[in-house]
Amino acid sequence: MDEMTYCIALRLKTGLVMLADTRTNAGVDNISRFRKLFTWSTPGERAIALMTAGNLAITQAVISLLQERIDANDPNQPHILNAPTLFQVTQLIGDAMRDVQDRYAQGLQAANESGGATIVVAGQRRGGQPRLYLVYSAGNFIEATDDTPFFQIGEHKYGKPILDRVITPDIDIADAKTAALLSMDSTLRSNLTVGMPLDLAVIRAGRFEFEELRRIEPDDSEFHALSLVWSQLMRDAFVQARERTSQMVAQGVAPQQMS
Amino acid sequence: MDEMTYCIALRLKTGLVMLADTRTNAGVDNISRFRKLFTWSTPGERAIALMTAGNLAITQAVISLLQERIDANDPNQPHILNAPTLFQVTQLIGDAMRDVQDRYAQGLQAANESGGATIVVAGQRRGGQPRLYLVYSAGNFIEATDDTPFFQIGEHKYGKPILDRVITPDIDIADAKTAALLSMDSTLRSNLTVGMPLDLAVIRAGRFEFEELRRIEPDDSEFHALSLVWSQLMRDAFVQARERTSQMVAQGVAPQQMS
Repeated sequence: MDEMTYCIALRLKTGLVMLADTRTNAGVDNISRFRKLFTWSTPGERAIALMTAGNLAITQAVISLLQERIDANDPNQPHILNAPTLFQVTQLIGDAMRDVQDRYAQGLQAANESGGATIVVAGQRRGGQPRLYLVYSAGNFIEATDDTPFFQIGEHKYGKPILDRVITPDIDIADAKTAALLSMDSTLRSNLTVGMPLDLAVIRAGRFEFEELRRIEPDDSEFHALSLVWSQLMRDAFVQARERTSQMVAQGVAPQQMS
Repeated sequence: MDEMTYCIALRLKTGLVMLADTRTNAGVDNISRFRKLFTWSTPGERAIALMTAGNLAITQAVISLLQERIDANDPNQPHILNAPTLFQVTQLIGDAMRDVQDRYAQGLQAANESGGATIVVAGQRRGGQPRLYLVYSAGNFIEATDDTPFFQIGEHKYGKPILDRVITPDIDIADAKTAALLSMDSTLRSNLTVGMPLDLAVIRAGRFEFEELRRIEPDDSEFHALSLVWSQLMRDAFVQARERTSQMVAQGVAPQQMS
């Protein structure tokens, strides 16, 4: 089930940008729409977004478990809205993943099905920096750093080249949104198991709330315009590539290094 | 082993373009270089190129079998240089694949290893059109048509978006070479199991010989210039994308259709 999703999360100096598709399928003749981006916030104190990929029963159970603990608000059981740091928030999410995996492991194995799932956790709490984590099926997790300022889950390959070329921790939120949307656009074009609508979330650093949280529908005029503009820019670039390469070779510009 | 290779073959009205990497590995600490592009020609009568992906022992055995039959030149055993059509050439290649798979199937299964392999066959013989086929492990095969004028084998996802955007059967050989090299460049950047040098082959329609057949080394100044130029063009396009999108939305250009 892992490849039937595409989610991108970017961790910049200026904040966090998350973008997820909504297509889920159990075979190409059984396609439905499920939200993969989930958000919680205590405006002014913290904002947290999760994006999920993999076994849908597993990830839905994890989300429900996290929500039940928030609703219960049991002083003896910390939850993601009161855990003191984002690291501890992510530990709680990893623990919930492990609880759910343990509960269904035997049944999934008996049915010869995979319970594999991954969860991206992005957020900031007052007093901390914007953080971005990737939680695995075992509940363990890694954190994005300046060296690798983005995580992708699901069908990540089609949309990776554009991110590799333009994402650095220093780009602004608007550029990061554009890069995420272009990466999604390339994936939508190449893979039918990733589909519209999209869910977008933005947490600007130091605001502790969602600056933007919206669904991009298939008829969204801005996304559609971006897709058309990018196609034209790609074709223009392709036309220029050969000529400029000939010029560069003719000028004898020495290759400095293969990148 | 399937993902440790990237080969592209384009079938255009003006001819055939093939590009292959040369990296093979059995784990990231055991990387070596093996040719994956193999060519045969009887200049003026036919030119044939094969590119291979998958289990290296299997594909090497297929290539050796094809070569032995050419060398034996037994009148009772047709080979790829005397079979009357490219379809029959590809049948011979499929048969060789099946022979080799049958020979090692039991041993591979016992070792719990995959014998999976694919072979791209591109060529033209006097009296026929340029043809492009993809042969599977079972020896069966499909042919490229105007609807799908290219085949990729191995690690194909990173390099697919650029091909989807620019390849049609009507582009010329020079553009096709550029597109193949850019597709390879995106893949090299994103995946360490695909590596330089590259092997390039070009068969222009109606010539029945290789117009170009060369190895592109890591220090190739033209490939390096193309890579630098493309990076710059991508970054320029990215900078323009948002502004042009805003203009298009402001002008109220109606989305015609999502592509």
